[in-house]
Amino acid sequence: MTREPKQDRSRATRLRLLESTIDCLAELGWAATTVGVVAERAGVSRGATQHHFPTREDLITAALDFMFDSRMERARKETPDVPPGSARTEAVVSRLVEQYTGNLFNAALQVWTAAAADPALRERLLPLEERFGRVAHKEAVEQLGADDSDPVVHRMVQATLDLARGLGLADVLTDDSARRREIVRHWAAQLDTVLEDARSRRAADPLAR
Amino acid sequence: MTREPKQDRSRATRLRLLESTIDCLAELGWAATTVGVVAERAGVSRGATQHHFPTREDLITAALDFMFDSRMERARKETPDVPPGSARTEAVVSRLVEQYTGNLFNAALQVWTAAAADPALRERLLPLEERFGRVAHKEAVEQLGADDSDPVVHRMVQATLDLARGLGLADVLTDDSARRREIVRHWAAQLDTVLEDARSRRAADPLAR
Repeated sequence: MTREPKQDRSRATRLRLLESTIDCLAELGWAATTVGVVAERAGVSRGATQHHFPTREDLITAALDFMFDSRMERARKETPDVPPGSARTEAVVSRLVEQYTGNLFNAALQVWTAAAADPALRERLLPLEERFGRVAHKEAVEQLGADDSDPVVHRMVQATLDLARGLGLADVLTDDSARRREIVRHWAAQLDTVLEDARSRRAADPLAR
Repeated sequence: MTREPKQDRSRATRLRLLESTIDCLAELGWAATTVGVVAERAGVSRGATQHHFPTREDLITAALDFMFDSRMERARKETPDVPPGSARTEAVVSRLVEQYTGNLFNAALQVWTAAAADPALRERLLPLEERFGRVAHKEAVEQLGADDSDPVVHRMVQATLDLARGLGLADVLTDDSARRREIVRHWAAQLDTVLEDARSRRAADPLAR
């Protein structure tokens, strides 16, 4: 009977460390985010921290992994309850772009930028980057109700994610939200035309694929 | 008669320091780019370096400023010699996107990311960011032969620059050039439709603006 609560406590400790890592990275930057600072902020002993994450790299990659997964899970739950079409496209693009702002993006940016000048860290991040890109694309396709087998649609969904990343970067130093809303509105209209054209092509030739 | 060569030498020293700063930032990262490292790499004494740039921040912001200006100057010289239309749009978007990869982008990314967790550095960078954004937009409009007074065109040119920034970020850890070429091709086609529509609107109602 003591097993379950102990596991729960351990899970809660782990979670506090991961969240503290993201906050430290976003607020203090890469260099200042040491295991000691993260542990203190989470109110977890150094010993318990090292039990969960033997190295700084373990802690940081686990934090990115965990936060990406929570974000994707939340996105799936919040899929707009409207049929595919311009309103849905705009709602999805807007939510997707907002995911590339705030603490998680800033934390990831700290790690990615450090990796640009650190080959060992880069090797470690590549599988994460590959997985994040793949899952984010699949999620965007599903939420847009898009036909990803259409090559134009495939590239334009990719471009939407690249645009979201660029808008995230533009928001790092200043609050860019007003301009971002306008960009989202105009791009969503363009993207919706692409999705609509693909739907018409498929309707005209349903056996094409 | 000794004045001119001395000025030339001083200018050449300054230039070597600025180029060395960009290379150090891109290769070694923010923390490792100290005045000492930059000076040694440029083969310039500490005294001469401090004469040109009293602080590390002076050196780094001057380096970003200088490299941005050289890049813009080069871009102006290389404006494609084709009339506005789909070929020109693709050539301009492609070149624009390539400007957001490589050493200068990586160097700027190091500084921007450090500023995200450093309010004093952020204050210092804001006027640079504002100027870079404004000049890059104006340059893109001219090279595309676009009518920036058209609100859809204005936003889509902005989105193109945001996309370029996002593609630059995607290229930091891995060589993303093959995928990027495809995105550029599809995005340019989309942008060209927007530019073409704006041209038709203006032709149909030349007094509208």
